[in-house]
Amino acid sequence: MGVNIYHRQQDQLTGDEIAFAGDYFRSVKNNNYLVLETNAQTIGWTSQMQQPPYPGQMRQNVFAHIGSGANMVEYWHWHSIHYGQETYWKGVLSHDLGPNRAYAEVSKTAHEIKKIGKKLVNLKKKNEVAILFIHDCNEALNFMPFNGSPGWGESNTNAYRSQLVSQFHRVLYRNNIGVDYIFPEKADFEIYKLVIIPALYIASDELLEKINNYIKNGGHVILQFKSGFCDENSMVRPMMAPGPLREACGFYYQEFSNITGLPLKDNPFEVEENVAKDWMEFLIPETAKALAYYDHPYFSKYPAITINDFGKGTLLYEGTLLSGQIQTKIIKKALERAGISDPDLSISWPLIVKSGKNDPGNSVHFYYNYSSEAKELVYPHPSGKELFSGISVTKGESLKKIKNTSFETTAPRLPA
Amino acid sequence: MGVNIYHRQQDQLTGDEIAFAGDYFRSVKNNNYLVLETNAQTIGWTSQMQQPPYPGQMRQNVFAHIGSGANMVEYWHWHSIHYGQETYWKGVLSHDLGPNRAYAEVSKTAHEIKKIGKKLVNLKKKNEVAILFIHDCNEALNFMPFNGSPGWGESNTNAYRSQLVSQFHRVLYRNNIGVDYIFPEKADFEIYKLVIIPALYIASDELLEKINNYIKNGGHVILQFKSGFCDENSMVRPMMAPGPLREACGFYYQEFSNITGLPLKDNPFEVEENVAKDWMEFLIPETAKALAYYDHPYFSKYPAITINDFGKGTLLYEGTLLSGQIQTKIIKKALERAGISDPDLSISWPLIVKSGKNDPGNSVHFYYNYSSEAKELVYPHPSGKELFSGISVTKGESLKKIKNTSFETTAPRLPA
Amino acid sequence: MGVNIYHRQQDQLTGDEIAFAGDYFRSVKNNNYLVLETNAQTIGWTSQMQQPPYPGQMRQNVFAHIGSGANMVEYWHWHSIHYGQETYWKGVLSHDLGPNRAYAEVSKTAHEIKKIGKKLVNLKKKNEVAILFIHDCNEALNFMPFNGSPGWGESNTNAYRSQLVSQFHRVLYRNNIGVDYIFPEKADFEIYKLVIIPALYIASDELLEKINNYIKNGGHVILQFKSGFCDENSMVRPMMAPGPLREACGFYYQEFSNITGLPLKDNPFEVEENVAKDWMEFLIPETAKALAYYDHPYFSKYPAITINDFGKGTLLYEGTLLSGQIQTKIIKKALERAGISDPDLSISWPLIVKSGKNDPGNSVHFYYNYSSEAKELVYPHPSGKELFSGISVTKGESLKKIKNTSFETTAPRLPA
Repeated sequence: MGVNIYHRQQDQLTGDEIAFAGDYFRSVKNNNYLVLETNAQTIGWTSQMQQPPYPGQMRQNVFAHIGSGANMVEYWHWHSIHYGQETYWKGVLSHDLGPNRAYAEVSKTAHEIKKIGKKLVNLKKKNEVAILFIHDCNEALNFMPFNGSPGWGESNTNAYRSQLVSQFHRVLYRNNIGVDYIFPEKADFEIYKLVIIPALYIASDELLEKINNYIKNGGHVILQFKSGFCDENSMVRPMMAPGPLREACGFYYQEFSNITGLPLKDNPFEVEENVAKDWMEFLIPETAKALAYYDHPYFSKYPAITINDFGKGTLLYEGTLLSGQIQTKIIKKALERAGISDPDLSISWPLIVKSGKNDPGNSVHFYYNYSSEAKELVYPHPSGKELFSGISVTKGESLKKIKNTSFETTAPRLPA
Repeated sequence: MGVNIYHRQQDQLTGDEIAFAGDYFRSVKNNNYLVLETNAQTIGWTSQMQQPPYPGQMRQNVFAHIGSGANMVEYWHWHSIHYGQETYWKGVLSHDLGPNRAYAEVSKTAHEIKKIGKKLVNLKKKNEVAILFIHDCNEALNFMPFNGSPGWGESNTNAYRSQLVSQFHRVLYRNNIGVDYIFPEKADFEIYKLVIIPALYIASDELLEKINNYIKNGGHVILQFKSGFCDENSMVRPMMAPGPLREACGFYYQEFSNITGLPLKDNPFEVEENVAKDWMEFLIPETAKALAYYDHPYFSKYPAITINDFGKGTLLYEGTLLSGQIQTKIIKKALERAGISDPDLSISWPLIVKSGKNDPGNSVHFYYNYSSEAKELVYPHPSGKELFSGISVTKGESLKKIKNTSFETTAPRLPA
Repeated sequence: MGVNIYHRQQDQLTGDEIAFAGDYFRSVKNNNYLVLETNAQTIGWTSQMQQPPYPGQMRQNVFAHIGSGANMVEYWHWHSIHYGQETYWKGVLSHDLGPNRAYAEVSKTAHEIKKIGKKLVNLKKKNEVAILFIHDCNEALNFMPFNGSPGWGESNTNAYRSQLVSQFHRVLYRNNIGVDYIFPEKADFEIYKLVIIPALYIASDELLEKINNYIKNGGHVILQFKSGFCDENSMVRPMMAPGPLREACGFYYQEFSNITGLPLKDNPFEVEENVAKDWMEFLIPETAKALAYYDHPYFSKYPAITINDFGKGTLLYEGTLLSGQIQTKIIKKALERAGISDPDLSISWPLIVKSGKNDPGNSVHFYYNYSSEAKELVYPHPSGKELFSGISVTKGESLKKIKNTSFETTAPRLPA
């Protein structure tokens, strides 16, 4: 499995795209992957978005790929080309073909990998959370978008991929919750304790039945609006929404409305961004319990969020597009329900952690600092060894190394 | 005459489009009309503008159509369809095909009509105000627009229809002044006491002569900028503007300027929105009297609004696009000049009144409340009967019924 | 050489376009030129940007053309046309074909020219500053733009012409610094003491060598970012930027970044608009001296502006797009270095001066007031004669004539 991963740099470097693509492509073959192309100096088909990396960002990116499971990081490309469309899609070398700042950092990083790479390659992960991803949902929601300016059918917002799925993934990534993707072609729900399902607009009866069974048998699901609405041919199901998921959801609905932005009544999640937007379903609970209502003069009786016990599991439903802060609260609570815990869950953005087991079977933990400020953290794992320096580290030790210069990664650390 | 009338719902429901289309299509054949399609639950070729109606809005819309002279209200469509472009152009029933909130309101309204419909059908109106409407003016002003971003000829603002005509109509509608449309093919000016003529950019000599004669014989006219400028072939008349209307107008002009927004000097209409915009003609009065000037460092000597006595009538001219508040003041004053009065003229938005005579020859008055707040009004007509309840109502009685829930119509009332 | 020069009017009349086009087309054949078309009453292919001139603007424009070296001013067109695309591209006469306000001003101006035109025609200029203009730079920077929204190659911002060159010219024009254009086909650098070179993105080795020699021999150059980057085929030079200009510049660079807007550190030019934007080169000085740095957390070590002594001359380099205020300070300082002085340099916008020698070999000085306020100035030239009135004027005399009504030109004056 090989993949090209491009992203913003400088103040816009977050690692979001690296983690998203890494989790996604690692999941496709359930194996390590190769990064065939990624940002060298700058990208762009014009010179309008040149963002040469800040010192340390190129190195940080390499270890961000490896921490996600990459077995190779290759640049597009070695040297910048002198004419044509990709003149400003710059390589490690500039047009002058001589050594430069980028080359120096790539070279430094490559020598580090030469030294400790054997302990990082073939990193294996065992995650307890998964996101269900379906390309057909993106296509169908482009044909009939639910947000953006009314486009009379010609809109192409890619909202499923770039707003819904990516919001869920970003919340997981920035809270250091390891995640895999699962796909309808091989939907191994049972491996996971919690499955997050963004707007499941397109789904066959068979897939919906799998979800129902997963929950019945003790699985926990977070399900988003529009799920179960259409069959696999984008035909709206001629039954009460959410169709075959009705019993698992514990409600039905017949109506929905676009909204620009509404608060949830009484701010039930106690967040600053207490806002629901774009879409509102008029849920009518049967067995589900309401977790939040809209603050609206006419439609405040319909819950915005519900939870339903179904068999041995639970289904939490979001009838609207929630803010990232609300989403974070919902996911953290779902981890508790699903019995998922990890010592690194107490750390969060801008400190990022990635973990896995290496070839010898040892645990490796990568710590990234995505801010320009120095940070401290208490090392929560069994005693081990800091790989770059070879210095030992004990459980509970306060790591000062995280204070080194901005965007420098102190990863990876390998317990003995 | 059948027509499709679609509009916004929820907080954007004003009845403007229903009244505009109703007045227009009733005037085309000078008879009642059928609404072949209108909003059921929601409209849109995507799901980006779904606006299921607030409670009572569907019922209010039905009586708004009837009050404008509709003899039938039909929905597009009975049930929502399950695939294709109009998946989200929802019918009375949702995709589940079962009874729902919309069906309940449609059913309730239908039963009301079954009960009292014979007293509402074939409603006849006799209005004293008319708007002259000419499609060619819309086309020609799209070819050579006078506002919006300079489009080098490719612009299509539909300003005549969607800004000029609709502004005049909205002022009339929201002040409960009954209005018909007249068309150049059959311009029966003489029936009306006051004729409002939006930018008459395209007109034959014959039509202009009719207008001159109408005023000479005692008619009152409100005429807007660019009138008389071109002949019926969109050729600018090779004479002092406003061409054959010069004598009736009592001024000529040779110049005009686009403007972004200018106050009228000394706020002569004493309004909050004291603003003229988009277009300014450099009127040079001959017999006309200036009613307002521009507040401008170089062009303040040219009147913005003039009035001219011509024969037994008057012509009020607007050389610029005036705010709705100024337009309201101008029209109310013109009603006085034309000797038009009606007890319902003391009521205004958000309380809307529509009236007519039914088959037995009785007057019917419809009262609509387009706000969410309860309202009171003093019933100003001869004693009659509230049609829904059958309760008697006497002249001068204060009606509390207008306080019932938002958007609920207390119409119709039928004096004995 | 004939040229059409169109521009905004009313509050947007600045004379910028008249001066820019005049300097440019006068330079093409190094001779006087004819204005074949210019604004009569109004322009536009719709009626969305009608701007009939304020009183005096038409006269001011005629003398603005003549002061730039025009030998004729012709209008498009005599009378407004009655149909088609240019209906609102109005002539001196309106559609009514009768005399009007515009005609009166044109007639007055024409009679003035009849009286004193022989003293104005064939005006010759000898400027000490030149701007190098290359169409290929505009084309190439449209293919690979450096600012505006990222357009993935399809952008067409014309930034070279409409932002870079025009900024330099506007600063010169508004500070009454006479300027010619020079072109690569006949680049007579030696005639000038100071040559301003906007982003010289496209240039042959031969042209760059000419520039190097010009400086070596004592010339002074202001050079802007991206210069020397590509050869004449838009191929990036495979060497350290700025290629063959490296020695003259006294620095090299390998990197560049887009920026939205950054202050220069410590506001070295003491201006209100202390801002660099769009583009930032990471200059590494060899012999050049830094004049300003960026205020940036990571890239503050790279100079924004440098100056280098090279042979007998100097090269000032701008590695970023500077504000007009900074540009003004830089150019004024460069005049000092180049030993350029003129008594009119103490006057600036909104008072504009243009000068030249007429057929009899006398100096003519045109004074324009582009504000609506009266202005005074001290006449700094040898004693002469005010041409319109014939009144004598002595050196050091305070001219009150500049107070006359807005946009009225008191030009031209002819010393004996």
